[in-house]
Amino acid sequence: MNLKDKKISIDYWVSEIQKNNKAVLARAITLIESTNANDAVMSAELLKKCLEIKPNPTIRIGITGVPGVGKSTFINAFASLLSQQGNKVAILSIDPSSQTSKGSILGDKTRMTDLIKDSNVYIRPSPSGTALGGISSYTSDAICLLETAGYQYIIVETVGVGQSETAVHEITDFFLLLMLPGSGDELQGIKRGIMELADLVFINKADGDNLLKAKIAKADFSLALHLFPPMASGWLPQVIMGSSIDRKGMKETIQIIESYILKTKSNGYFEKNRIQQKLNIFRQQIKKIWFEQFIGNEKIKAKIQEVELSIENGIIQPQNAVLEILDFQKNI
Amino acid sequence: MNLKDKKISIDYWVSEIQKNNKAVLARAITLIESTNANDAVMSAELLKKCLEIKPNPTIRIGITGVPGVGKSTFINAFASLLSQQGNKVAILSIDPSSQTSKGSILGDKTRMTDLIKDSNVYIRPSPSGTALGGISSYTSDAICLLETAGYQYIIVETVGVGQSETAVHEITDFFLLLMLPGSGDELQGIKRGIMELADLVFINKADGDNLLKAKIAKADFSLALHLFPPMASGWLPQVIMGSSIDRKGMKETIQIIESYILKTKSNGYFEKNRIQQKLNIFRQQIKKIWFEQFIGNEKIKAKIQEVELSIENGIIQPQNAVLEILDFQKNI
Repeated sequence: MNLKDKKISIDYWVSEIQKNNKAVLARAITLIESTNANDAVMSAELLKKCLEIKPNPTIRIGITGVPGVGKSTFINAFASLLSQQGNKVAILSIDPSSQTSKGSILGDKTRMTDLIKDSNVYIRPSPSGTALGGISSYTSDAICLLETAGYQYIIVETVGVGQSETAVHEITDFFLLLMLPGSGDELQGIKRGIMELADLVFINKADGDNLLKAKIAKADFSLALHLFPPMASGWLPQVIMGSSIDRKGMKETIQIIESYILKTKSNGYFEKNRIQQKLNIFRQQIKKIWFEQFIGNEKIKAKIQEVELSIENGIIQPQNAVLEILDFQKNI
Repeated sequence: MNLKDKKISIDYWVSEIQKNNKAVLARAITLIESTNANDAVMSAELLKKCLEIKPNPTIRIGITGVPGVGKSTFINAFASLLSQQGNKVAILSIDPSSQTSKGSILGDKTRMTDLIKDSNVYIRPSPSGTALGGISSYTSDAICLLETAGYQYIIVETVGVGQSETAVHEITDFFLLLMLPGSGDELQGIKRGIMELADLVFINKADGDNLLKAKIAKADFSLALHLFPPMASGWLPQVIMGSSIDRKGMKETIQIIESYILKTKSNGYFEKNRIQQKLNIFRQQIKKIWFEQFIGNEKIKAKIQEVELSIENGIIQPQNAVLEILDFQKNI
């Protein structure tokens, strides 16, 4: 059956997704990532149908940390425990570098051995990064499909060194930052501002010789987070230590996430935040596209380059440059 | 003489500004803040002339902190010392609340008694906030005029509770955060993310009974800043304590700023940052104006409200909403 041929296939797709048919789910995610205009129409219909089916409550968790912090091993231990507790878990990876390397999560599967054979777990390699609407937008759509398929825990992982961790924060309920023990030099890789987004700092590799260093790091980070202004969610960020290899700290992580969900659902932040996130994605995208419509005009593009050069050379102020562009625009 | 009547008056304005004629300077700043289209043309010419005169090296300092931290008293002590050392100092206030209250800095002048009678110091109350291009843009233009008038130190102050502190960070070389001793509850007022912008945290009111608390706060903040990832400038943020009333910590503040300037000029960050700031202002403004051009179309505005409501009600995903808007746009 050619899934794209018939109108009826949308209903077929949705019913198969609801049955957690992983092959159809994978093709559906590929569809929403597509840049093809026909696919976009079908993708829109599919998402609309999925949104009509209200899924059970879900929890979206963003996980980030520098390379070497042990993200894959952590997710292996963490998602295994969630699965053992009777949950269905989906893992999405956002890795900007994978546009050339074709998805680093594939290489990491050797560290996710427990998950690959677990039928309650679905792992999706990095999307291609070329779809209309940027990372946040299509990952938000992928989450929508996964929730229709009955996954209760959606884990979105990314490398904490670029722009993608902010994108992940924008589409998840709970943001977990993995850190190495030692609290100092290893921070070099983390972008400024990311620490303030964390609902939980998990100091990983707190085993063997690292244990004392991890304890010091825990105390340091606890103090630092305490000095931050309060979060909009009303949540107090937590710091714990553990070991993905020894599977220590996983139960505590789940308990902390549950407390967070309880707190933010009772104070109304949870729902408000999910709606706000979707509005933000929409507004960012429409602004971006409109901007590109202007820049698509070769004359305006050239004029912008010209005034930017004048700004760089200290000949005009930004405000004058804006006026020049607006004048120019009137006369073309 | 009506300054706006003749073309020749631009040259007159510039030469009077260069002579630091404070009356002309004040009118010139009012001109660049104006939303009148004719004023915009004149303002553009004025700024262009000013940019042709390369001023001596200047230092732009952003100062923020919650109400009650003692910003005015600090600026009084700090700017007085700069003036005593032979510098000309200009103080600009960005206070978003002043659009209704007509400039809170006027009320604060009782705490700036040393500065009011000091001919080396120029104080400018809050701009009206209605000019084309937002806070960053017209304040950046005002700085340009002040530098032409020979002011070497430009202090831009704001209340650290809204959006304006980010705007101030975007147009200054050095960002100073004033804090109260006690390191905890008083952070309630500071927005998350601001602490990571600070090049210097100055713990104010470290006098009398507060001294011990201030010392603890200093140690805490030093540790917290140490845990942040490094700044793009290569600068290590500093924490000191002092007292604006006792005028303690002012000399140290000046020395720290001088070290910062030395470091960032030698590693090339200083110049690069100033150019990048101007490009950012330009790009933000042009995006904002183009977005408003779209929104100016009543039909599109109504359609956006419609799809946003659908997003809020969980009927469509952001990506679908974007497609709907683009389709709609094609057909009007």
